[in-house]
Amino acid sequence: MPNNIYTDLAMEARELHPELRGVVEEKDERPGITISRIKVETEEAAKEIGKQIGTYVTLDAPDLLCRPLDLFEELSKALSDELKAMLKDLKKDATVLVVGLGNRSITPDSLGPAVAELVYVTRHITEFLPDALPGPVRSVCSAAPGVLGVTGIETMEVVRGITEHVKPDLIIAIDSLASRRAARISTTLQITDAGISPGSGVGNTRAGLNKDTFGVPVIAIGVPLVVYASTISQDTISLIADETGLHRDEERLKELAEKVISEKIGTLIVTPKDIDTIVKDMSRILADGINLALFDASYDEIRMLVA
Amino acid sequence: MPNNIYTDLAMEARELHPELRGVVEEKDERPGITISRIKVETEEAAKEIGKQIGTYVTLDAPDLLCRPLDLFEELSKALSDELKAMLKDLKKDATVLVVGLGNRSITPDSLGPAVAELVYVTRHITEFLPDALPGPVRSVCSAAPGVLGVTGIETMEVVRGITEHVKPDLIIAIDSLASRRAARISTTLQITDAGISPGSGVGNTRAGLNKDTFGVPVIAIGVPLVVYASTISQDTISLIADETGLHRDEERLKELAEKVISEKIGTLIVTPKDIDTIVKDMSRILADGINLALFDASYDEIRMLVA
Amino acid sequence: MPNNIYTDLAMEARELHPELRGVVEEKDERPGITISRIKVETEEAAKEIGKQIGTYVTLDAPDLLCRPLDLFEELSKALSDELKAMLKDLKKDATVLVVGLGNRSITPDSLGPAVAELVYVTRHITEFLPDALPGPVRSVCSAAPGVLGVTGIETMEVVRGITEHVKPDLIIAIDSLASRRAARISTTLQITDAGISPGSGVGNTRAGLNKDTFGVPVIAIGVPLVVYASTISQDTISLIADETGLHRDEERLKELAEKVISEKIGTLIVTPKDIDTIVKDMSRILADGINLALFDASYDEIRMLVA
Amino acid sequence: MPNNIYTDLAMEARELHPELRGVVEEKDERPGITISRIKVETEEAAKEIGKQIGTYVTLDAPDLLCRPLDLFEELSKALSDELKAMLKDLKKDATVLVVGLGNRSITPDSLGPAVAELVYVTRHITEFLPDALPGPVRSVCSAAPGVLGVTGIETMEVVRGITEHVKPDLIIAIDSLASRRAARISTTLQITDAGISPGSGVGNTRAGLNKDTFGVPVIAIGVPLVVYASTISQDTISLIADETGLHRDEERLKELAEKVISEKIGTLIVTPKDIDTIVKDMSRILADGINLALFDASYDEIRMLVA
Repeated sequence: MPNNIYTDLAMEARELHPELRGVVEEKDERPGITISRIKVETEEAAKEIGKQIGTYVTLDAPDLLCRPLDLFEELSKALSDELKAMLKDLKKDATVLVVGLGNRSITPDSLGPAVAELVYVTRHITEFLPDALPGPVRSVCSAAPGVLGVTGIETMEVVRGITEHVKPDLIIAIDSLASRRAARISTTLQITDAGISPGSGVGNTRAGLNKDTFGVPVIAIGVPLVVYASTISQDTISLIADETGLHRDEERLKELAEKVISEKIGTLIVTPKDIDTIVKDMSRILADGINLALFDASYDEIRMLVA
Repeated sequence: MPNNIYTDLAMEARELHPELRGVVEEKDERPGITISRIKVETEEAAKEIGKQIGTYVTLDAPDLLCRPLDLFEELSKALSDELKAMLKDLKKDATVLVVGLGNRSITPDSLGPAVAELVYVTRHITEFLPDALPGPVRSVCSAAPGVLGVTGIETMEVVRGITEHVKPDLIIAIDSLASRRAARISTTLQITDAGISPGSGVGNTRAGLNKDTFGVPVIAIGVPLVVYASTISQDTISLIADETGLHRDEERLKELAEKVISEKIGTLIVTPKDIDTIVKDMSRILADGINLALFDASYDEIRMLVA
Repeated sequence: MPNNIYTDLAMEARELHPELRGVVEEKDERPGITISRIKVETEEAAKEIGKQIGTYVTLDAPDLLCRPLDLFEELSKALSDELKAMLKDLKKDATVLVVGLGNRSITPDSLGPAVAELVYVTRHITEFLPDALPGPVRSVCSAAPGVLGVTGIETMEVVRGITEHVKPDLIIAIDSLASRRAARISTTLQITDAGISPGSGVGNTRAGLNKDTFGVPVIAIGVPLVVYASTISQDTISLIADETGLHRDEERLKELAEKVISEKIGTLIVTPKDIDTIVKDMSRILADGINLALFDASYDEIRMLVA
Repeated sequence: MPNNIYTDLAMEARELHPELRGVVEEKDERPGITISRIKVETEEAAKEIGKQIGTYVTLDAPDLLCRPLDLFEELSKALSDELKAMLKDLKKDATVLVVGLGNRSITPDSLGPAVAELVYVTRHITEFLPDALPGPVRSVCSAAPGVLGVTGIETMEVVRGITEHVKPDLIIAIDSLASRRAARISTTLQITDAGISPGSGVGNTRAGLNKDTFGVPVIAIGVPLVVYASTISQDTISLIADETGLHRDEERLKELAEKVISEKIGTLIVTPKDIDTIVKDMSRILADGINLALFDASYDEIRMLVA
């Protein structure tokens, strides 16, 4: 298949390059959850696979579609465990900034702001009223910077302005992702220590949110919530090609794909019909997982923190 | 193409049976809007095309995607004119019940309840305080009966219970539709005097909302807001078949289609990413059009009615 | 004090008539909750106190303001226990209709519709798919009929239309109440087997939702969420009168009250600034309590029912 | 009356000090709107009246309660005219930052974020795609920094971070205010070139958003949306005192006031029952007025800008 197909998920990029050197993959299991940990180790591999050097953990929980609450809890705990492994060197008195990226007025894009609102913040107490606390508590704060089209300000300018004042030791960024497979929507989440980097085609390095650009570790958590309608079409063509032997005629295939997509589908970005529920559930799961990882508390206590 | 493909739009059903007898089509134009008026005249045609006997008017406004407010106004006026033509025999003192079908918690399904809320209601004044009115005013009321999964009551039971008390002379029902073409979402609306009838495959005649089942004229207004992901796939295969001559091998084509759909897409129902804005705009346009048709007022006055 | 002050709470009406014959009061305690059970036993008492004959249970949980989740659980369980006591004669196979009264677009009035949406409904399964159930399950359904100003249809007409089709054996009606004391907002709920009856001043007996008008038991659950600004003013004047001995001059007092209220306050109905959170919490507590009472399940299972 | 009563409105503060030197007041009229322009000219007057030196314009439109759309338009135009007078020295190519203060999850506190979202932003085009514009267009951007309790970051830290990157020539800040008179809620708005300054009692000068602290002109626009329940009580007592001659006994009056307030009302902040509609209307009116003042366009064109 052409490698110009874009995906936000390292796992999907990996599937397109299964034999690539410089990429190490490890599988793991938890009740109801398949864990994939992919390490992109070399610049060559990074370039080929279209992802930055770093670790990409994917949690896949297909049964989430049925909304069993015990799987919600297990997924929050799995997220917490993966986060803890990534931030094991973080000092007790470190300040953590949770950044919720996206547009809160567009439901599938509102995951970041929703999580930012549910994260338990303490910085205003640790900073100004430390004596009100029983002991050392992690200093956590949050921001939802909005999007360029609504604010007229580049998201990263806003984040940079805030970080210059807050001076966090770690940034956790939450974002909605685009998946190549509709089935992954609402059942998958990706955690990476590579931060968020703009696609190579965009050529706008200022837009990145990662250790290089911000000087502190950046962990990005993303959930695939949209799929380009054109990928559904491309997948169909690809499968037909495999089945009919048509793939030998690649040029014509590409022409067909372009024709179908432009005529019938356009640049449509689609999302499942029940996206309202999915975003509500997923923001709950992510916030619980982050709160669990940052504070020394049980799942039940964490649930109470934000009512 | 196989005629088992489901669509709520008579125009799309017609496209699949362009030569069918007993179906008459008329085209018309307004600034920015293409109007198609399809009459299904015989039982044979109705059966073949999968639609009840009646008139189906489609208003298509592709530029609506750019959200020009003058097109909003033109579309409301076009809707009003088509409605007025359909209800020209309605008496001055008739009571009209506007029923907003759908689930208000699922954005692409919330068009009906949203319109019901924006329709200007007068029945409580015409009925109980007629002297408060300067002259005869159309008696209008509305209901949003909810959906079976949320209430445990069949929608039509609720509507029937209300109509037995309100005794309307006309019912206008609003619903979200499924389209076969993603491009139609948010740019098309259908008005029909055939009411809403369940698909022939469902075999549940109680579920219909039409003159036969309710004893009064029922005008249904629908907007395509979702598309089955499988139709995107089917469209792709269909186009490939045309281009490659593969359509001669129909059995294999169907097998392929089923394989692609079940593996990659499942029963996913998708909706555009910006569905929140689309539903907000469309409910505004529909409510304005209905208010214009039912009350003797200008567009500006109508806009003021519901602030 | 003048007895023309309106309150929806029997407990407050009782406070204004502490010595009245024909009214029996019983107090009880649960962790964090004070329970008052008032029985209005005679027509004379009913008339004097402005409430129908029946039992009125008030649950008062002042600490709820701090939102401790264990008190949420305790309050849901207390509500469930009081409900179970009231519906102890209800047959296993009885059908229960939960009616959420109020306007969902006005936050302090949206409690009823919110609870109706959170109640677990089963009637569509017990009625149409009984074999899908492991054993006998209570048949529960819900409705949110809207309000006259939005629908043009009297609420009770809609409820009557639905009950004629659903034929429930019990109706549970949820509504927002007006309190005479601002402090009661968000910390109190009232359960009564007297249903909902219009104030004597309204003179519209059709508007009642009770056993007399609907032929089946009606349990009403209400939460005070608004307070008339004039009651704050009246309370102030009343206290001043007590303190200054001014109450001997009642006529002048009333004039003053009227002057203050009309000049400074008008007919303003006020609600706490954080009403969004209060309604969200209270609808959760009520729905959990109702689900607990109607289904044979634990609190944790009930919480999972509606995610 | 004691001068410790807090109000955000200069007009109300002025009413408490009608004879104060160093304060100049001018009245004006527009259809349906009373305009008051108060200039606080000296430090002494500023201290006495509890407001910074500057101009405070109040627009009062009592009929707004009935929601006549032509008054919406008139009020937006009046706001625009007052704004234009204040920013008459602003250069054509100046950058304007609109800051929406408040908590978007608490309805009466969500005016600022709502306006920020409705303001038409152009900075991303003027900055990065100037050639896409037909001619010089005002560079406008917006931010909704959130509140300390939700983000853990002081609002002004966020605003400062953003301004250091955006380098605006003018800041327009939008905020909900507290009024001393419930009747003013939803019918009044205040515009001031004094920016936003914390109450003298707070003693936290960093929290101010004004020319001194940010180095650029700051225009603040506020709408009274909440009232302290205690002010209703205090007003009542004050009126009683006037009527009964009790005001000679001031100590006892204060004791009574404190007693009534703490016993019956607490620290309750109240808002009208229909606050959802009020905030929606007011954010529309403010955004239209700001867009009118900043862009060279008609009211109808402005209405189209944000659909």
